[in-house]
Order: sequence, then structure tokens, then C-alpha cells
Amino acid sequence: MSSPVSRRRMTKDLSFSQLAWGAWRLRNSSDIKNTADILALVHACLDAGISTFDHADVYGGYGCEAYFGGALAKAPELRSKMEIVTKCSVALVKDTRPDHRINHYNTTKAHILLSVENSLRNLATDYIDMLLIHRPDPLMIADEVAEAFNELHRMGKVRHFGVSNFTPSQFNLLQSRLDTPLATNQVECSVLELAPIFDGTFDQMQQRQTHPMIWSPLGGARLFNTKADPTVDRVRPVLERMRDKYNLPGIAEVAIAWLLRLPCQPVPVLGTMKAHRIADAAASCGIQFDRQDWFEILVAAQGHSVP
Amino acid sequence: MSSPVSRRRMTKDLSFSQLAWGAWRLRNSSDIKNTADILALVHACLDAGISTFDHADVYGGYGCEAYFGGALAKAPELRSKMEIVTKCSVALVKDTRPDHRINHYNTTKAHILLSVENSLRNLATDYIDMLLIHRPDPLMIADEVAEAFNELHRMGKVRHFGVSNFTPSQFNLLQSRLDTPLATNQVECSVLELAPIFDGTFDQMQQRQTHPMIWSPLGGARLFNTKADPTVDRVRPVLERMRDKYNLPGIAEVAIAWLLRLPCQPVPVLGTMKAHRIADAAASCGIQFDRQDWFEILVAAQGHSVP
Amino acid sequence: MSSPVSRRRMTKDLSFSQLAWGAWRLRNSSDIKNTADILALVHACLDAGISTFDHADVYGGYGCEAYFGGALAKAPELRSKMEIVTKCSVALVKDTRPDHRINHYNTTKAHILLSVENSLRNLATDYIDMLLIHRPDPLMIADEVAEAFNELHRMGKVRHFGVSNFTPSQFNLLQSRLDTPLATNQVECSVLELAPIFDGTFDQMQQRQTHPMIWSPLGGARLFNTKADPTVDRVRPVLERMRDKYNLPGIAEVAIAWLLRLPCQPVPVLGTMKAHRIADAAASCGIQFDRQDWFEILVAAQGHSVP
Repeated sequence: MSSPVSRRRMTKDLSFSQLAWGAWRLRNSSDIKNTADILALVHACLDAGISTFDHADVYGGYGCEAYFGGALAKAPELRSKMEIVTKCSVALVKDTRPDHRINHYNTTKAHILLSVENSLRNLATDYIDMLLIHRPDPLMIADEVAEAFNELHRMGKVRHFGVSNFTPSQFNLLQSRLDTPLATNQVECSVLELAPIFDGTFDQMQQRQTHPMIWSPLGGARLFNTKADPTVDRVRPVLERMRDKYNLPGIAEVAIAWLLRLPCQPVPVLGTMKAHRIADAAASCGIQFDRQDWFEILVAAQGHSVP
Repeated sequence: MSSPVSRRRMTKDLSFSQLAWGAWRLRNSSDIKNTADILALVHACLDAGISTFDHADVYGGYGCEAYFGGALAKAPELRSKMEIVTKCSVALVKDTRPDHRINHYNTTKAHILLSVENSLRNLATDYIDMLLIHRPDPLMIADEVAEAFNELHRMGKVRHFGVSNFTPSQFNLLQSRLDTPLATNQVECSVLELAPIFDGTFDQMQQRQTHPMIWSPLGGARLFNTKADPTVDRVRPVLERMRDKYNLPGIAEVAIAWLLRLPCQPVPVLGTMKAHRIADAAASCGIQFDRQDWFEILVAAQGHSVP
Repeated sequence: MSSPVSRRRMTKDLSFSQLAWGAWRLRNSSDIKNTADILALVHACLDAGISTFDHADVYGGYGCEAYFGGALAKAPELRSKMEIVTKCSVALVKDTRPDHRINHYNTTKAHILLSVENSLRNLATDYIDMLLIHRPDPLMIADEVAEAFNELHRMGKVRHFGVSNFTPSQFNLLQSRLDTPLATNQVECSVLELAPIFDGTFDQMQQRQTHPMIWSPLGGARLFNTKADPTVDRVRPVLERMRDKYNLPGIAEVAIAWLLRLPCQPVPVLGTMKAHRIADAAASCGIQFDRQDWFEILVAAQGHSVP
């Protein structure tokens, strides 16, 4: 059976699956009790055509990479079938990081190199497909980040580079110091967070022919909350109608399909830890989302008609 | 008698009159009862040196173009004396558009081509001088719009292209896919709507040497409302003083002259349906607006002194 | 004794001291009673390695330049040891300016040339090191400003040019008409005014390798006010802790050192009129501000942790 999940060309020689899977909840989920559960999830992803795995050094209090890497070490043949993304530059207060007195960002060359060493060891791999600067750092010296990227690339430890949560001008600043194009900007977007559609972030991505990645494509748990939320109360009934119309498993798949319709051709990152939800999610990729249906959801999300 | 209305060079080979006349109220005005009234208005414009006529497919519930075209069909010799602007991409719910279920935008190639065919037929002309994308469409694929523009230009159906209500980054995105410069960005601006003066929109226009067009240059009817409105209450007395100082027919002409003073050299679109108001409006072009008078109006509009 | 105040390369052939001294309070200070007091202050600056003196035609109601120039005329040998910055384009209502009816901006060539003539005479010098457009003028014709700059440069009256309080798009507009790079953008920034760190202003400066100057680096007097101010109440204790940690004379020096840590490498303008405070201020330049300490102040200023 061929997967509805197609590929996104991120750089000249790297493609991602149209959906990625994200590890940020890996250590906080009752669905994941051991390495076998992780491997089942990875297989579910690969079977569904989802080959891109999104990490960050800090996910799970600096614990998700190693948890995932422990599973990967038991099935090293899987490595070549996946693209691994990870991130650096956020520095959290944590007993394993005794020198951290306050949550902060660090984009020094030394920190980036050290962070990648940790990520490689934790992930049980000898290369990262794409490394992202996790958050814009007001103290970022773009030349120094460029030096770190060059060195990591030269050593073969990281193949491609991108950013996350950057404004267009932060993106342009860092890009101005690099010889190769930044391969993505991973930002938050969903029916509950429309900003990058209108603030220039996605205009920049389309103009550069760069695919953004999208975190919290379901707005965190908010879309499924039962407590009163006027935006959710407007959007959910429309999503339910579209779920039925397009014969999708749930409103989550409608919300993902809605993002996939954007002309910047983003890569949403799925947060589910349930293997059976993975195949469901892949269904988001299989539909032709009608333009007017798309606007119906936008209007519900905005709470007003288009002008 | 020579007109005070000068010309604006919009592209290498197209100029507009410094003021345009806009059709958006053509079907809602008690001043326009038949084709003869429209022709009288057109003649008043041309006599006053106003040769640029601004339309959109959707004005008057998709009705203004045909109303205007019906008049033009009776005096086809006028066509070569005017520049016709029209717009596409807004899609309204209307019984004549049974496939529209919700007000939305459509910048697909198919829609643009179809919309232009309708506009040409409705306007009783075989070419449009300038076609604008009416609203930024979050689903716009810039490459596809470029294809539509190229095809319309090759067929001789549309001579020049522009946009309306675009942010600078939306403008840059579309421009990046075009071989020729976008000829305008038609945006709202007035003493009651100052945003494009400060948010980069007019900076971009001046930098590119592109003349924006301006809709609602009088802030809709708001400037003439009798009900309490603190901004209007501050601005109107100043406009009245300037009307007397510059010997202008009314405060409308002061408000237009105030816009004409902007260094981006905009083309305001007049909404009047009264032939006798046209010559009045032209008077806006004849004055040298003093810099300090200009700031007096700005300060009244902002409600605070300049910093 | 060598000074901790290093140099900032502003253009190919002009450097500033890392801290500048600003004249804006020169006529409103009980510390300055006569020309001798000014000279004492100038010597204190030069002794501390602060050689850049920031003026504007309008400071002190058009009075500070002449007050300072009166002192300089008595010690003309100092001129070659300093860089003089001044500004033009703000036009204030003042009895010495009877043609000004309202506070406004003026970036016409005639005004810029006249303003520089006044500044040269008032400052008792025959050249200005750097002239800034003081405020973005909505009526600015960039070509005309460029003409004025070119003429002033050709005549040897002004050596370098910059702007103040410009947004990135205003900066780009003016730059697009100039043959040489704008040498600075002087903006407000402090622990109480964080905007340029996040809104693209400083990204643009770092990308262009242009050093911004910073006015009100202490947030006006607000940082020292005794009345309740939630932001100050959060920030001050942290500044006090850092003062002790880094062994700095006061919280003012911490606030300056915090700015100096920014990667755009700004030049803060000191407003003090007390000679003994100058050497204190220079101490800001002598420390290595720890990254986490920097974030501790940012978090106190923002009132929330970094995301």
C-alpha cells in the first residue's frame, strides 16, 4: 500500500516526509513505557511514510534524545531510513546542568558544538540531518553561529541547518552570514495560532522556496479541551463538519490538512505517542482540501469574515 | 483651461491621472439613475483631467463593471482617453455566483483568467490597463499568479499588473516571481487611517518609485458624520481652517491635498458620484500644501504632538 | 592609566568611543554653571576615553550647541581629539524660530543645509563628524536628503551621515538613495525599553555591521525614581545584585554594561552632567558580562521567563 504522505525537498540533497513526528512528549506519555514502545512508534511512522523525526536537546528535560537513542541503538538499521532533526541553544535549569542558574539561550560556538556532541551521543547516531537554532537569542553573534555550522558540517556531524521561532529579520541576519540556505524555520501555527500566515513569516518561506516546519499544529491540547474557549467553540463544529465531508478519522486530521494546504508547503510535526494515531494522521495528506472549506475554517478561527 | 490634475508615471509606458475616479458606489447612488448619468460623470472626469477609472469585479455585487460598460458601449470613442483599472480575487456569496458558499479569495490561474474575461465583457473593452490582485490571499501561490499575469499580458488582455491591500512582504513575495515591476499597491489611507504612512507600506513604494493608489481617501463617510467621534472632532476644525486658507471648495479637498503631499506621490481614488464634485476635487491638485499645515493635520489626526 | 573604553569602527575611516557623551541636558543642569564647567566635563570625558560628543540643533531649545561651542572656542585644541555628532530635522516652536507655528519635522535640502550652517557656527567648528536625521519625517523625499548629504560632504562640512529613530524600512529607503552606508541609527534602548532588540532594528544593524547609538540608556530618570513602577521594582534589585557582583559603581553602570553586551555593539550616549560620574560610567566597559546574568536582567525587565 503506498502512503499518502509525500516528500518535501528541504535542500538540494535532503527531503523530509510531508509530516514529521516530534519527540517532545516522549518522556511524559503513559503510552510509552519502554524501548519497545518507542520502536513500535518508529515503525508505525516509517510504515506510514513518515521518516522525519524531530528532537531538541532540551525535550523532556534533556531526556528525550537519549530515550529515543536507546531504542535506535537496538535497531540501528533504521537510522538510514530516517531524517533526524534536533535543536540547540535553549539552556534550562536542571540538576544535570548545574551551571545553569536561569533558563536562557546560548548560541555561542562552544555551546553549539557541545550540544551537538551530546545530541549525537544521546541519539546513538554519528550524524544529524538537520540542526536548528531553537530560539532567537538576543545575544546571537551571527558570525559565530556561522562558524559553528561550518565546523559541524566539515566534520560531517551535521548535514543541514535551520532555525526555529525566528522572525523574518532574525532569519535574514543569520542567513546573511551563511554560504548555504537555511533549510527551514520551525514555527508554531495552527487554526488557533494564525500569526505566521499573516506576519510575513510564511511569505518569506514561500519567497525563498523554503519549507517551514510547524510545531503545535493542533494548538497543543487546546483544540480538544472541554472547557469554554470561544475560538475553539467556533472552530470545532466546522472541523467536525469537514471531518465528515472528507471522511477523515478526526478533527486533528482536518486541522493538519488545513495547514498542508498552505502555499509555503509546511511540514507539520505530529506530537502523538500512540502508534495507531500515526496512520490516521497520514490520512491528512491524502485529501484535496477545497479552497472554500479552507476559508470556512479560517473565518471560524478569526471570528470574522474576510474583509 | 488647463487642469491642475497632473500625471503620475505608473510604469515605463503607462501614466495615470494624479486622481482616479472609483466605481465602487456606482450602483448604490441616487445620483446615478441611468447610462446618461454615468456618461455625464465620465465626461466631468475627463474634462477635469481625471482619466483613470478604478473598478473591481465585485463592486456593486458584481454589478458596477457592467453598468459602467453599458455607458462606455454608447461612447466607445472615450475608451482611448481613459485608463481602466480593475481587480480580481475576491469571491463573494451572490446568487449570480451559485458556487460561492462563503466570501473568500481566489488567486488561482483559472479564477484570474475567468475574472478578466468577465471584466472585459462587462466593461465593453478589449483590454484592461491595470489589473490588481484585490486582497492578499493566504493561499496565494505566487508562481501561479505570475503565470496568469504572463498569459493575460501575452494575449493583450491586460497591459500592467499591481496589487491592493498587500503588506510589504506580500508585495515582495509576488514581485519575486515577476519579470516586470508591480505597478501599484492600492491601500486605504486618509487622515483617519494613517497606518501605511508609518508601517513601511509607503516606504516601500517610495523606495521602488512605485505610486500607491489610495482607497477611502476621505475615511469613508466618517469625516462627514455628525455623531461624536473624537478623531473627527479634532481633525475637522483644522481641515476647515485649511479649506479657508487655501481657498478650497470643502474639507474633502483638503483631505485629498493632504494625501497628495506624501512623498510616495499616491493616486487617491475619488468616490463621488456627483459630476459637480469632480471639478471641486481637481482643485486639490492645484495647491502647494505647506509643510507645517500638513503636520497640523497629522497632529490633530494622531491626537498628540510629534515626538 | 589606559581606559576600559574601547573604540567602535563606525565607517571605513571614522571610529567612535564605545560610550558617547550627550549634550541634551547641558542647559538644564545645575551642575553646569559656566564654560569652565563644560570644559571640565569635556576633559573628564577625554580622560576617560570618551571622545564622541552627541548633539542636536534642538537640544536645550536650540541652545546646547552654542553653549558647548562657547567652551570649545576657548580650547580649540580639543576639537581634533573629539568626534562631534549632531542632528537636524526636528523643528520646534520657539521665539528664536518665529516661522515655526507647530513642532514638526523638516528634511528638505534647504532646511538640512541651513541647520548644518547653524550647527557649525554654534559648535565653533568647521566640520561635523556625523550628521543624523533626528526623526523619520513622513514627508521625507529620500532623493532630496541624499542631495543635501552629498553637498555637505563635498563642501567638507559633514564627514559622515546617519539617522535616528528610524524603522528598518525607513532606514532602507534612505540608504537606497545613498552611495555610502548610513553610519548609525540612534535609537532608544534600555532595560526599560527593549523594543529594538526584538523588532528588527538591531537585527538590521548587526546584519549591516553598523553600530547603533543608544539614547536614554538608563530609561530617563525612571530607573532611579522612588515612586512605584512594577518594571523598575523587578529590575532594580537585580541590577543592585549585579553591581555588587561586578564591583561596579552603581546600577547605572550595570544598565550600560547590559547594553554593551548586545551583539550589534552599540554606542550608548551618557546623559550625565557630573564630571565625577564620567569615570564611573567608563567602568561599564571594563567587565565581561556573563550571559546568564544578562538573561536574569532581561527576564526581570520582561516580567516573564524566556519561552
